[in-house]
Amino acid sequence: MFHLLDIIGTLAFAMSGALTAMSKKMDPFGVFIIAFVTAAGGGTLRDVMIGHTPVGWMLNLEYVCIISIAFVLALLFRKRFDQLRTSLFLFDTIGLGVFTLIGLEKGINIGLHPIICIALGTMTACFGGVTRDILCNEIPVIFRKEIYATICILGGGVFFVLRKFGLENDILYLITSLVIICVRLMAVKWKWYLPTLEHQ
Amino acid sequence: MFHLLDIIGTLAFAMSGALTAMSKKMDPFGVFIIAFVTAAGGGTLRDVMIGHTPVGWMLNLEYVCIISIAFVLALLFRKRFDQLRTSLFLFDTIGLGVFTLIGLEKGINIGLHPIICIALGTMTACFGGVTRDILCNEIPVIFRKEIYATICILGGGVFFVLRKFGLENDILYLITSLVIICVRLMAVKWKWYLPTLEHQ
Amino acid sequence: MFHLLDIIGTLAFAMSGALTAMSKKMDPFGVFIIAFVTAAGGGTLRDVMIGHTPVGWMLNLEYVCIISIAFVLALLFRKRFDQLRTSLFLFDTIGLGVFTLIGLEKGINIGLHPIICIALGTMTACFGGVTRDILCNEIPVIFRKEIYATICILGGGVFFVLRKFGLENDILYLITSLVIICVRLMAVKWKWYLPTLEHQ
Repeated sequence: MFHLLDIIGTLAFAMSGALTAMSKKMDPFGVFIIAFVTAAGGGTLRDVMIGHTPVGWMLNLEYVCIISIAFVLALLFRKRFDQLRTSLFLFDTIGLGVFTLIGLEKGINIGLHPIICIALGTMTACFGGVTRDILCNEIPVIFRKEIYATICILGGGVFFVLRKFGLENDILYLITSLVIICVRLMAVKWKWYLPTLEHQ
Repeated sequence: MFHLLDIIGTLAFAMSGALTAMSKKMDPFGVFIIAFVTAAGGGTLRDVMIGHTPVGWMLNLEYVCIISIAFVLALLFRKRFDQLRTSLFLFDTIGLGVFTLIGLEKGINIGLHPIICIALGTMTACFGGVTRDILCNEIPVIFRKEIYATICILGGGVFFVLRKFGLENDILYLITSLVIICVRLMAVKWKWYLPTLEHQ
Repeated sequence: MFHLLDIIGTLAFAMSGALTAMSKKMDPFGVFIIAFVTAAGGGTLRDVMIGHTPVGWMLNLEYVCIISIAFVLALLFRKRFDQLRTSLFLFDTIGLGVFTLIGLEKGINIGLHPIICIALGTMTACFGGVTRDILCNEIPVIFRKEIYATICILGGGVFFVLRKFGLENDILYLITSLVIICVRLMAVKWKWYLPTLEHQ
């Protein structure tokens, strides 16, 4: 179940990368790379920082295959992208929840402090999108619009609070993902933004 | 003493990141991340490249706390930033000296060649600021203005020359930091720049 | 022989970095760093991702020396750059071939799947140029123009197909490099591009 959600999230992240790259008039290779980086970048940064090398996606072909499928789907459906926007957004939200959980779990496994684990989960979920925006030469969208990373942090907090009550892992994962997914849906529906800060 | 200077440097780097991010109209989360990356980015790159993982700031909450305090200070004082410019600049200079020394020391501990150690020290001191500028979508300031990294390289050179004379570590550290701090103050006061290079 | 080609490739990559940085009016330090990152960036990313730390260029002074020489050459010849364009392009092409092979080999040594090895070879050859463009605040050229990374992937494919026939390593390396070099020369001569993709 968890694994299936990981696949769905990877697919969605890769498609969002591919579509951003296409809007920048990149060639197919560039589009593929941006798709790859958007989907695998967060996990790569996490693995490198905690010393889990070779990094996860290198160990078998699964991620390469999923991202290739996402790339082909993005090519095929690029004319009808507007109709797909809603499904893509849903997938992306699932990815956000699952990637946060994977990062949390990896941090817990090597005995890091809960707050560091939350940082790790947030990085896993958000860094791919940050790299996508840097490679496309834009200020990363998560720094400017939409409460995105904030939701990962909130989810991580919920996870550790519930964990104190001794809930089982499966239920913990389920509740945390649902919290992340629901809050994101509400945030987008009711346009919750953080105010921007300016000095002077 | 050394540890205290490390804290001051981290604080100053984080505040400079926060203030840059605020000038780009980022939301609070973006401001926090840029503050974090500016302060912890150099050490993270260094630790990842020499294989010290999990990277330093993950091992306890100290850095997270310092950077959070810097973030709050930057928020509170953002209207009066101009009056603080001098103190911030001093802190930043202390950070430059201390971070260079920490990088030098880590390189020496794993037996790298002095020139590689100097590179490591310079990276530790400068990479945070480079990442800040990339995330804010600008050509990194250290490549364009002010002799900044050059001072770290100079400090590293002084360190290894004095080390040949068999000075004790404490005195070595003190002199190297003072060299870095004084040269930077003079460089800014008398506007020492490197000439820019252009082809054609 | 292989080692000599590695040196030529590093020189060429460093010079291309230095020349790009000079066209952005950077100071000498910035120019040196961009030269360094262009030449050593690909190998650094590869080593970090597979956990070979400290990364390759830190282990001795060889790379630092080669890149310093390239930096000096770029300074000296910057006025006559147009006359050198052809030799530089040839060197760069040699670098492309050699760096791809080095990446392939490292992947094989730690038992990664051929497709992952090809990804590693392509990253080794291309990431330096990507970082150069990001630091100079441009959308990386390999995502927009010229079939560059595609040639590395092709070369990697040829390598593994020929390997199935039980060719010796030396001959394998020779043929793969020649394929990469020839295809690149033809691609530039006859202006082979990948079409760009746009959504809508």
